[in-house]
Amino acid sequence: MSYFADIEPIKFEGLDSSNQLAFRYYDKDRMVMGKRMEDHLRMAVCYWHSFCWDGFDVFGGGTFNRPWHGGPIDQARADHKLDEAFEFFTRLGLPYFCFHDVDVMAHAETIDEHVRNFANIVDKIQEKMDATGIKLLWGTANMFSHPRYMGGASTNPDPDVFRFAATQVRHCIEATHRLGGENYVLWGGREGYDCLLNTDLKQEKAQLGRFLQMVVEHKHKIGFKGDILIEPKPHEPTKHQYDFDVETIYGFLLANGLEKEVKMNIEANHATLSGHSFEHEVASAINLGIFGSIDMNRGDPQNGWDTDQFPNDIREITTGLYYILKNGGFVNGGNNFDAKVRRQSIDPADLFHGHIGGIDILARSLLNAAAMIEGGELDAVLQDRYADWHSDKGQALLSKDNGLEAISDAALAEGISPQPKSGRQEYVENIISRYI
Amino acid sequence: MSYFADIEPIKFEGLDSSNQLAFRYYDKDRMVMGKRMEDHLRMAVCYWHSFCWDGFDVFGGGTFNRPWHGGPIDQARADHKLDEAFEFFTRLGLPYFCFHDVDVMAHAETIDEHVRNFANIVDKIQEKMDATGIKLLWGTANMFSHPRYMGGASTNPDPDVFRFAATQVRHCIEATHRLGGENYVLWGGREGYDCLLNTDLKQEKAQLGRFLQMVVEHKHKIGFKGDILIEPKPHEPTKHQYDFDVETIYGFLLANGLEKEVKMNIEANHATLSGHSFEHEVASAINLGIFGSIDMNRGDPQNGWDTDQFPNDIREITTGLYYILKNGGFVNGGNNFDAKVRRQSIDPADLFHGHIGGIDILARSLLNAAAMIEGGELDAVLQDRYADWHSDKGQALLSKDNGLEAISDAALAEGISPQPKSGRQEYVENIISRYI
Amino acid sequence: MSYFADIEPIKFEGLDSSNQLAFRYYDKDRMVMGKRMEDHLRMAVCYWHSFCWDGFDVFGGGTFNRPWHGGPIDQARADHKLDEAFEFFTRLGLPYFCFHDVDVMAHAETIDEHVRNFANIVDKIQEKMDATGIKLLWGTANMFSHPRYMGGASTNPDPDVFRFAATQVRHCIEATHRLGGENYVLWGGREGYDCLLNTDLKQEKAQLGRFLQMVVEHKHKIGFKGDILIEPKPHEPTKHQYDFDVETIYGFLLANGLEKEVKMNIEANHATLSGHSFEHEVASAINLGIFGSIDMNRGDPQNGWDTDQFPNDIREITTGLYYILKNGGFVNGGNNFDAKVRRQSIDPADLFHGHIGGIDILARSLLNAAAMIEGGELDAVLQDRYADWHSDKGQALLSKDNGLEAISDAALAEGISPQPKSGRQEYVENIISRYI
Amino acid sequence: MSYFADIEPIKFEGLDSSNQLAFRYYDKDRMVMGKRMEDHLRMAVCYWHSFCWDGFDVFGGGTFNRPWHGGPIDQARADHKLDEAFEFFTRLGLPYFCFHDVDVMAHAETIDEHVRNFANIVDKIQEKMDATGIKLLWGTANMFSHPRYMGGASTNPDPDVFRFAATQVRHCIEATHRLGGENYVLWGGREGYDCLLNTDLKQEKAQLGRFLQMVVEHKHKIGFKGDILIEPKPHEPTKHQYDFDVETIYGFLLANGLEKEVKMNIEANHATLSGHSFEHEVASAINLGIFGSIDMNRGDPQNGWDTDQFPNDIREITTGLYYILKNGGFVNGGNNFDAKVRRQSIDPADLFHGHIGGIDILARSLLNAAAMIEGGELDAVLQDRYADWHSDKGQALLSKDNGLEAISDAALAEGISPQPKSGRQEYVENIISRYI
Ligand SMILES: [Co+2]
Ligand SMILES: [Co+2]
Ligand SMILES: [Co+2]
Ligand SMILES: [Co+2]
Ligand SMILES: [Co+2]
Ligand SMILES: [Co+2]
Ligand SMILES: [Co+2]
Ligand SMILES: [Co+2]
Repeated sequence: MSYFADIEPIKFEGLDSSNQLAFRYYDKDRMVMGKRMEDHLRMAVCYWHSFCWDGFDVFGGGTFNRPWHGGPIDQARADHKLDEAFEFFTRLGLPYFCFHDVDVMAHAETIDEHVRNFANIVDKIQEKMDATGIKLLWGTANMFSHPRYMGGASTNPDPDVFRFAATQVRHCIEATHRLGGENYVLWGGREGYDCLLNTDLKQEKAQLGRFLQMVVEHKHKIGFKGDILIEPKPHEPTKHQYDFDVETIYGFLLANGLEKEVKMNIEANHATLSGHSFEHEVASAINLGIFGSIDMNRGDPQNGWDTDQFPNDIREITTGLYYILKNGGFVNGGNNFDAKVRRQSIDPADLFHGHIGGIDILARSLLNAAAMIEGGELDAVLQDRYADWHSDKGQALLSKDNGLEAISDAALAEGISPQPKSGRQEYVENIISRYI
Repeated sequence: MSYFADIEPIKFEGLDSSNQLAFRYYDKDRMVMGKRMEDHLRMAVCYWHSFCWDGFDVFGGGTFNRPWHGGPIDQARADHKLDEAFEFFTRLGLPYFCFHDVDVMAHAETIDEHVRNFANIVDKIQEKMDATGIKLLWGTANMFSHPRYMGGASTNPDPDVFRFAATQVRHCIEATHRLGGENYVLWGGREGYDCLLNTDLKQEKAQLGRFLQMVVEHKHKIGFKGDILIEPKPHEPTKHQYDFDVETIYGFLLANGLEKEVKMNIEANHATLSGHSFEHEVASAINLGIFGSIDMNRGDPQNGWDTDQFPNDIREITTGLYYILKNGGFVNGGNNFDAKVRRQSIDPADLFHGHIGGIDILARSLLNAAAMIEGGELDAVLQDRYADWHSDKGQALLSKDNGLEAISDAALAEGISPQPKSGRQEYVENIISRYI
Repeated sequence: MSYFADIEPIKFEGLDSSNQLAFRYYDKDRMVMGKRMEDHLRMAVCYWHSFCWDGFDVFGGGTFNRPWHGGPIDQARADHKLDEAFEFFTRLGLPYFCFHDVDVMAHAETIDEHVRNFANIVDKIQEKMDATGIKLLWGTANMFSHPRYMGGASTNPDPDVFRFAATQVRHCIEATHRLGGENYVLWGGREGYDCLLNTDLKQEKAQLGRFLQMVVEHKHKIGFKGDILIEPKPHEPTKHQYDFDVETIYGFLLANGLEKEVKMNIEANHATLSGHSFEHEVASAINLGIFGSIDMNRGDPQNGWDTDQFPNDIREITTGLYYILKNGGFVNGGNNFDAKVRRQSIDPADLFHGHIGGIDILARSLLNAAAMIEGGELDAVLQDRYADWHSDKGQALLSKDNGLEAISDAALAEGISPQPKSGRQEYVENIISRYI
Repeated sequence: MSYFADIEPIKFEGLDSSNQLAFRYYDKDRMVMGKRMEDHLRMAVCYWHSFCWDGFDVFGGGTFNRPWHGGPIDQARADHKLDEAFEFFTRLGLPYFCFHDVDVMAHAETIDEHVRNFANIVDKIQEKMDATGIKLLWGTANMFSHPRYMGGASTNPDPDVFRFAATQVRHCIEATHRLGGENYVLWGGREGYDCLLNTDLKQEKAQLGRFLQMVVEHKHKIGFKGDILIEPKPHEPTKHQYDFDVETIYGFLLANGLEKEVKMNIEANHATLSGHSFEHEVASAINLGIFGSIDMNRGDPQNGWDTDQFPNDIREITTGLYYILKNGGFVNGGNNFDAKVRRQSIDPADLFHGHIGGIDILARSLLNAAAMIEGGELDAVLQDRYADWHSDKGQALLSKDNGLEAISDAALAEGISPQPKSGRQEYVENIISRYI
């Protein structure tokens, strides 16, 4: 009998429902701006937090005691975990999931075992997907948990580690392709440094750049049509990670000729750890043309590490989705819940509560964002504020024909005296309050 | 009589001196690695913190009551301030100073006054420089204090503000050139946003990019041979600034074709506000080929704003200077003390104590860094750690001819099993402790 | 004609209104849990941010140019400001305001002027209050802006500064009493240190303790029935302030025998600067029996200084008000908007938008909190979670008769083996999401 | 053969030594201010970081592979670990160690096993201590790692967990007493909350208060003469811990009548996580009369979690030791290295490098601090700055006979006009620079 046997499939019951194991906002077939809610939000469950993590933290051991926990993940346990994961996915009712290679497979020590065990489970995943209709939003390779990666994967001082990482990624991207995955993600957990003094920055970044180029080359070679995504994170586990934030990665992509090939998987909690708001990272990626997908979660404003909690900030998510919708919505990307229930939330029902809370916040935010677009007040503010730049005179100023001398001579001759105009920040903020 | 009349010129007296108004380490003619200490460190006094700021903060008014404070800066006060600034420079004995246009000139309201008042004082500065031998490390235009700039300078929604900014920069860079300044700096105090919702990121960055190109074009037009420097800062005064940190700016330079034209002026306090160590920002700029100059100061680790205190961390500065020395030392750049005495330090002597503390920490750090280079232990660690990458086999791995498939096939065939090697972080950290 | 002449008095228009200069939630006479909304929320406008501050920050001058700005605040300007403040209060429609002595009075240099100018304006305030019906939530003395206070007020190394501070507080508390003020607040802006090395912690805290005792003694002497409130803040302007947070102050009150005499005025932005959530500070003060009043605002999660923005986080304020309502609601305290419009919000209408946004968030949060109390789900969770402690056996464990030996002997004999129970955090968080 | 067999006992070799496995400053018998260095610093190795932790973090498994790692800690592994720990202690040459009960014992599941396994190893520890002369600085019970403690120990919603915790502490304090331990420490790793909404603050603090009283009662009952110490930490693993910082605990002690019974064990990294400098926490505890001992380590200024690195900041430690020395030095407390080598530092030698670096920084800081006391410059600054308070007139101001009315009447009559005096912060900071 399934670990989740007591939980009925989660249904939409609307705002009047008092059932905490039902959706109040997420009505997947509801049309919003001409598209089904499910197709807008493209939500996914992640494999690692809910099915691999056993509740341990640095100060204490596992608390969850799921039936497949409690020993090394051999093939039987990996299969058991897979069964239960799809039991959960099915009961929850989201269209997608995401995984790392080592999340799903039996534990491997050698490179040979790695390739074999992974291939083994991919077959079984395929069957599960076929049987349930659940799809793969993205796959990724875990190149940070095994001790061989303690000093980085592609950025490791040992070239053999680079080769092992290349092997994992090659097989993982091929499996993702085969499973119809819509994106392939790279998160460089230890691609950074713990100590600047023993680190050759230039060498390590050269390794990282070439590695990323090879991933893109291989994607094209195998005909994978999805997006290659990098997930920024400033630090943790290492002191500093090279994929610090969206703009840092943008510079790196430009320097390696990859700015048209690679997009961003933005995690809310990583955004705030890097000193930015989630909305900032989303808007920046959109502005730079590299927006891809979202790892949806939240951090704790008082804690300086990646808490990966389920999201609950209606204002933040409404605004983030507003930018995404304005940009045309998700293409290959979606909203992956890179979120975990707290270590004290040990019951099967808790896994559902966590996801339901996140799903409903997203659904409600989608409705808000769509209404904001229809309302048009924000657009009007921007149109008005930058109107002078859209005039011929404004455009001319930015022309390559112009220069400091001509501009300053004219300004002086004209005796310009620009007068401050209100930025109307509180007016604009009240518009958001009105929609949430 | 000078405000600083009671303070004798500061001299090097060595470690045995108990005189707190003397240098214990800074012996400007002492040779270090074949160069005079003064020529290595290229230290500068900044005009703004010591001669313009009156001690006010957001919670209270000025405390300093320097003779030229207490009213609008008309020409007489500007002249008086200039006299005293050079009195201070002379008594302190550093070779350089730095200024913003509005720091030195009589207050201007109109564009015409601005140009006129600035030109007026530049003549007088020239005289002072000629008379004293004190040189200009860099000039910059203040495009953040006047209310017209409340919504940004080049990134303002009002094109006329862009034009005003262009006028200021044109005249300031020309004055810097005329005065023999060795660099020209741009710090975009309000080139950012307070509120993402009322901001058109794409538009504002297009303005910023074009503005910067024009500065570079004008530099070449007038034959200015110094460096154009951007000073990163993540926020404050605005919530977010576009020049967030070194790597963000690097991406921006690449996107605007300016990566060979513009370098970094790294401020220690801005580094830590952006979530990086000072050493990280220095090493990153060097690694990217855009290191220029230093704004030397420190922040308060418990306070989240730019405290601009005089530096005193021997470990941090030793390490920063080590990276700079390893890279060949300063070319056009130097160490500008962008630092201010605390609001309670109201006596003329306090201005000297602040600078002397900073100067001696730099001098001592220079000696440390030179010894570290001679000792060679750090170099040896890096050589050893990355040795396999410097072999033919390592180099081949990064070749464009290689790809994921070939690498992974070979790795699997070889059955590679890379073994972790110690990163020796504590060993390396102890090397630093040994030199400081 | 009033500066605010273009703005009609703000009215409640409900959710269907698209008028951004109207309330959508704040319907002051609406009954909530048996009390009028206005009487629940007891909202106040602060004098300083809206009528004294001219928009300057550390990097730039004033932007607002209100008619009473632009020169020293002599009696005419102080009177003008008072007229306009009450114009604003009246149009906005809140029942209360708050002030510092120096906010309202003509600028004074000598102690004699201080007492005289303050007395002068207090008479005029009395007239305004009588004429409009607007009441005083609290008064306070500004003992941080004048240079004499640069090293602290009661904690100053100079006893004469302590005496000046005593004089200000004595007159300000008497004026507050006379004006029917319902509380008297102390915020120790510079009661802390910039540098530990030049500070005698023990001496300064002895001064602060005695000063606070005198304030309480004087309150009783003059028959003031309101609460004496301390407003915690961890730092800014000083590096460290003695009134760091609620629990720090609680220890200080206990050490000075004042825990029954002094309560807390909790500012949201100060809470987050101190490393706590707003809700934490509220709940802690309630738990310790020292909750008094609220300075309602918000900080910026990415900026490490006191931004004092108008609140807009519906989740945070709902939760905070829930704790307050559960505790019986405000007694003498209320919600003072210690909030300012941004420096770019220079129009008179912006002042209204800022306040309206804050007022409506509070009104909506009040409705949410009342519904949460009626719903009872949160209460049920707590009752259930701690049920074993409320049993006789649980109570006995905490009895003074018990000790480690008896408890451990019994536990060992019984062979206890406590089993983890889910903390249900996500379930509980979803309850909040349901009400907001 | 010992795991550490390759490392010769560490000796003092002085500044000229280039041996990185020797002390350059720590010369244990050197007399400093009339006392041996060893007796001043009272340094200890902690058991947990070096002998229990296997190098895992939240993102990856163990890297160290010490011979006793790799499986559950049964009695044989516990014994092996103990042997190697004392091999390390002996080779390193510090006089003390510290442990948690579960660090040293074979793993236990039941309460009965716990008591038995702990008693078993305590006998063996006694033998090791007798054989080597190494002493116990303090013992403590780990009440946070086992899943039963996931919701707290004494503050758990389940009274049986409180009882289990009481059993652990009773046996651990008795063992500490028997082993001649000089202190007993409580660190409440999960005595706090992850979520305020499901937490009864008042109930949990009542439990914590009574628990602490029982510990003190039991100490007296068994005749333990050492100090009971609480170690503050603001958060991690929980979102908020009740023992947030020194001043929070002070209030808690006062409220529970324990301020004369309990002292502080201050950890440097916990200080900075709580928003304070290390020196601040030390000075505050001294000022409040509750200073006890130090957990010596450092955090990473860019990372928001407890990195527990070995200390290396000569300025910070010199200042901290200066305050301690001025207060008479350690009594029962000492300097416990609650520090761990980085996860990449996998060699036996790395454990020595980490400790040697920390030991030498402390020894050097001790020499600095002693010189500062002899130099007397800091004392002189404080004497001068507060001189007016030490006069009769200053003292009278603070007398209980005085009040606001009398003081303000006199101040007004006298027409006081206090003039700002320089705080001389930079002068004072340069004094420190001079000694380090
Ligand atoms: Co993620
Ligand atoms: Co995360
Ligand atoms: Co600077
Ligand atoms: Co700065
Ligand atoms: Co406030
Ligand atoms: Co504030
Ligand atoms: Co510790
Ligand atoms: Co720690």
